[in-house]
Amino acid sequence: MGKVSCDITISLDGYSAGHHQTEERPFGDDGGDGSGAALHAWMFDAPEENRAEIARLNTAGAFVMGRNMFGPVRGAWDRPWNGWWGDDPPFHAPVFVLTHHPRAPRPMAGGTTFHFVTEGVTAALARARAAADEGDVTILGGATTVNQYLTAGLVDELRLHIAAFTLGSGTRLFDGVPPLNLRQLTSRPTSLVTHLTYRVLP
Amino acid sequence: MGKVSCDITISLDGYSAGHHQTEERPFGDDGGDGSGAALHAWMFDAPEENRAEIARLNTAGAFVMGRNMFGPVRGAWDRPWNGWWGDDPPFHAPVFVLTHHPRAPRPMAGGTTFHFVTEGVTAALARARAAADEGDVTILGGATTVNQYLTAGLVDELRLHIAAFTLGSGTRLFDGVPPLNLRQLTSRPTSLVTHLTYRVLP
Repeated sequence: MGKVSCDITISLDGYSAGHHQTEERPFGDDGGDGSGAALHAWMFDAPEENRAEIARLNTAGAFVMGRNMFGPVRGAWDRPWNGWWGDDPPFHAPVFVLTHHPRAPRPMAGGTTFHFVTEGVTAALARARAAADEGDVTILGGATTVNQYLTAGLVDELRLHIAAFTLGSGTRLFDGVPPLNLRQLTSRPTSLVTHLTYRVLP
Repeated sequence: MGKVSCDITISLDGYSAGHHQTEERPFGDDGGDGSGAALHAWMFDAPEENRAEIARLNTAGAFVMGRNMFGPVRGAWDRPWNGWWGDDPPFHAPVFVLTHHPRAPRPMAGGTTFHFVTEGVTAALARARAAADEGDVTILGGATTVNQYLTAGLVDELRLHIAAFTLGSGTRLFDGVPPLNLRQLTSRPTSLVTHLTYRVLP
């Protein structure tokens, strides 16, 4: 069976997004225009330098993400919304979206299918594991979702990308998560972020 | 004029100490025996591997620390207390301790003298700068003290040592500090911590 990783970009003070998300500002009060551009500059402005970490994202057999990472729609799915990523999302694999509101699976171009899971984090992971077959499952975020998986003890590996600024408020990694023992696996600085990976110890 | 650095060890979720400090447990609820042993294992259990970062601490011409880092005594200095470090503390330079309660300077062995500053963070830094002459000043902590200096815009460089566990509560770096723009200078993993240094940008 593959491993379960969380892969998330955070500010140096631990925030993966600011408050007040809207459709125009998926990362809310992120210190910039709400696009998350500063947090994710390592992916978009320096892809060559960070190729290994970007490639690793693409090795997952299935993904899990929270409702807020998927979109700004709250409550029932009463308007069309297929994610922030256009017709051909960069996942190229099944993506299990946590939600309280049932919705039929939505196939996209390029091999991505969004599945909507209303039975909670454990059920979503079980479905992702089944879809990934022997492959890895990557929990993509946001921080609230990662925190739920960490609290549930369902994470094997934590992959953090730490951006060189602080945000001061927002959605914070580790909030409410009981103390974790980790083993540091790798740490790699690039010009815009440091990539840190940890094994989560029992 | 030398630069002003903050040099502090934190858990991956940003805590430099747990709550409930006592004389027997200087780091309070730190997940262990309160000695800060897990946080500072890099210094004491792996000094060879971390020699550069330990040596850099010794290059400061003067130090500043908060009252809680100096000791568990609260209120007036109504009992003998000369720090946690014995008769020959590892600083070998003037150390300016922030306090609300006046006290005469206390020379120790090895060149360390503890000076007690009641006029606040800016005054303490001015005295440390004067004592350091052309040398650097290092703010040693705790997080509350570092946060005051960051908020006041008085820090040139941030040197973090990130331990491989989370603590979940305690005294947290960056709490209440307005958003900071940083430039990542170095990132060096060793077996127990990752050392990260940042320039604080205006």
